[in-house]
Amino acid sequence: MSYAGQMLGAIPGGIKVDANVDVLAEVIDALGDCAQACAADTDADLSEQNLAEMVPCIRLCEDCADVCAATARVLSRPARWDARFMMLLLEACVAVCRSCGDECERHAPMHGHCRVCAAACFRCEQTCRGLLDVMT
Amino acid sequence: MSYAGQMLGAIPGGIKVDANVDVLAEVIDALGDCAQACAADTDADLSEQNLAEMVPCIRLCEDCADVCAATARVLSRPARWDARFMMLLLEACVAVCRSCGDECERHAPMHGHCRVCAAACFRCEQTCRGLLDVMT
Amino acid sequence: MSYAGQMLGAIPGGIKVDANVDVLAEVIDALGDCAQACAADTDADLSEQNLAEMVPCIRLCEDCADVCAATARVLSRPARWDARFMMLLLEACVAVCRSCGDECERHAPMHGHCRVCAAACFRCEQTCRGLLDVMT
Amino acid sequence: MSYAGQMLGAIPGGIKVDANVDVLAEVIDALGDCAQACAADTDADLSEQNLAEMVPCIRLCEDCADVCAATARVLSRPARWDARFMMLLLEACVAVCRSCGDECERHAPMHGHCRVCAAACFRCEQTCRGLLDVMT
Repeated sequence: MSYAGQMLGAIPGGIKVDANVDVLAEVIDALGDCAQACAADTDADLSEQNLAEMVPCIRLCEDCADVCAATARVLSRPARWDARFMMLLLEACVAVCRSCGDECERHAPMHGHCRVCAAACFRCEQTCRGLLDVMT
Repeated sequence: MSYAGQMLGAIPGGIKVDANVDVLAEVIDALGDCAQACAADTDADLSEQNLAEMVPCIRLCEDCADVCAATARVLSRPARWDARFMMLLLEACVAVCRSCGDECERHAPMHGHCRVCAAACFRCEQTCRGLLDVMT
Repeated sequence: MSYAGQMLGAIPGGIKVDANVDVLAEVIDALGDCAQACAADTDADLSEQNLAEMVPCIRLCEDCADVCAATARVLSRPARWDARFMMLLLEACVAVCRSCGDECERHAPMHGHCRVCAAACFRCEQTCRGLLDVMT
Repeated sequence: MSYAGQMLGAIPGGIKVDANVDVLAEVIDALGDCAQACAADTDADLSEQNLAEMVPCIRLCEDCADVCAATARVLSRPARWDARFMMLLLEACVAVCRSCGDECERHAPMHGHCRVCAAACFRCEQTCRGLLDVMT
């Protein structure tokens, strides 16, 4: 089990949120993985021959990394659970992961790192959508 | 002029967003100030005698610091400007700054650091609302 | 394999650093896990009955989360590899992970979340030390 | 006075660190400004015609932004003050601000945003050195 799952399982009194521990842990892990992949993808993009074509990908990865990292931290502290605030953040993650995943996928045939990053973005988008679904 | 204003003024081709440089620079500065004040306020809260009463304030400050810091970074890179994504993030900032400012204000009569932090939160809320107004 | 390992394996031209892909991926994963566990532990600590005793643990977790998250990002972009800068950062991680792990371990008999967090901190300390060893 | 200065001045019992409030506030402000300028500079660099030449500048700005932002947060919570840990972090900031400032300065004659960013990096380097001097 990931550290996120173990930490959530050990919260005094259990989590009082609109989701169970497994769903929440999966979202936190997917956000952290996506933030890491996006940070790594900016750096790999900057080493590519077709640099000018990679600029939109670099910019999307930078935004995606920042917003997913911040959302992972907020979700890691579930004792305060403001549903409206969480939904805005999760919808922002869904939007940027979708855009970033689509852009990375365009480069996936040429660049293996963009293929991996697209997978991380789409998995993150799906888990955030899943959490939004159980919240509404 | 702040570094944010100077940097925005030096962007090649100018910014292509739904706001002018001064408005955008003011929002970036207010988000950075709010993130800093909230990080500092958690630490000051943890030194107070009435620690148990400060717990909601600490939690709000942690969330507010993370989301405002991430939004400041995204806004500092305005070449990619996805209006829907930006509005979700700005609305998340408005929500958490409002909640955090209200909670800090409750403690303001006793704790000077909460008074300063409330001012930073409310200023940030106002500037984010201002940017949302010119975007819609 | 983690996304970090997959991303590093797909870097154009391979990584040109003082470590192999497996070692570097393990450090990035351990830093990300430690940052997540520490963010979660601050929140769990704030829910405990013996709140006043948890204050040093909360403060260490906050510092540890911030420095490990930043170092994970820097290591995720290995194309620029300034050995002296990396060693300073890794030594800062070793120092804060050690202090944070020791403090969390003190509370481990009472609080399961501190036991999990201590494990994440010590694993992170060990992997950072391992990378420092191959760098010097 | 900046929010950092106001917050430090309102800490219960005063700060117990190896520096006075003014010095510490100046460092926190310089770190926050440098992190902002570096985030903005990556984006402006990506819009330049001579993109391939800007790659080292983009990479340095990304590292500099992450480490300065994390250090600003740690310094904003001065109640825990581990001198050795703080010195490692400050030395990491000095190293990356120096490298980033030097690289930005090379592009300053052509790009106004690099001129502004170089100034933010050098000011940050100087304030971090100043704090290191009073700590040793």
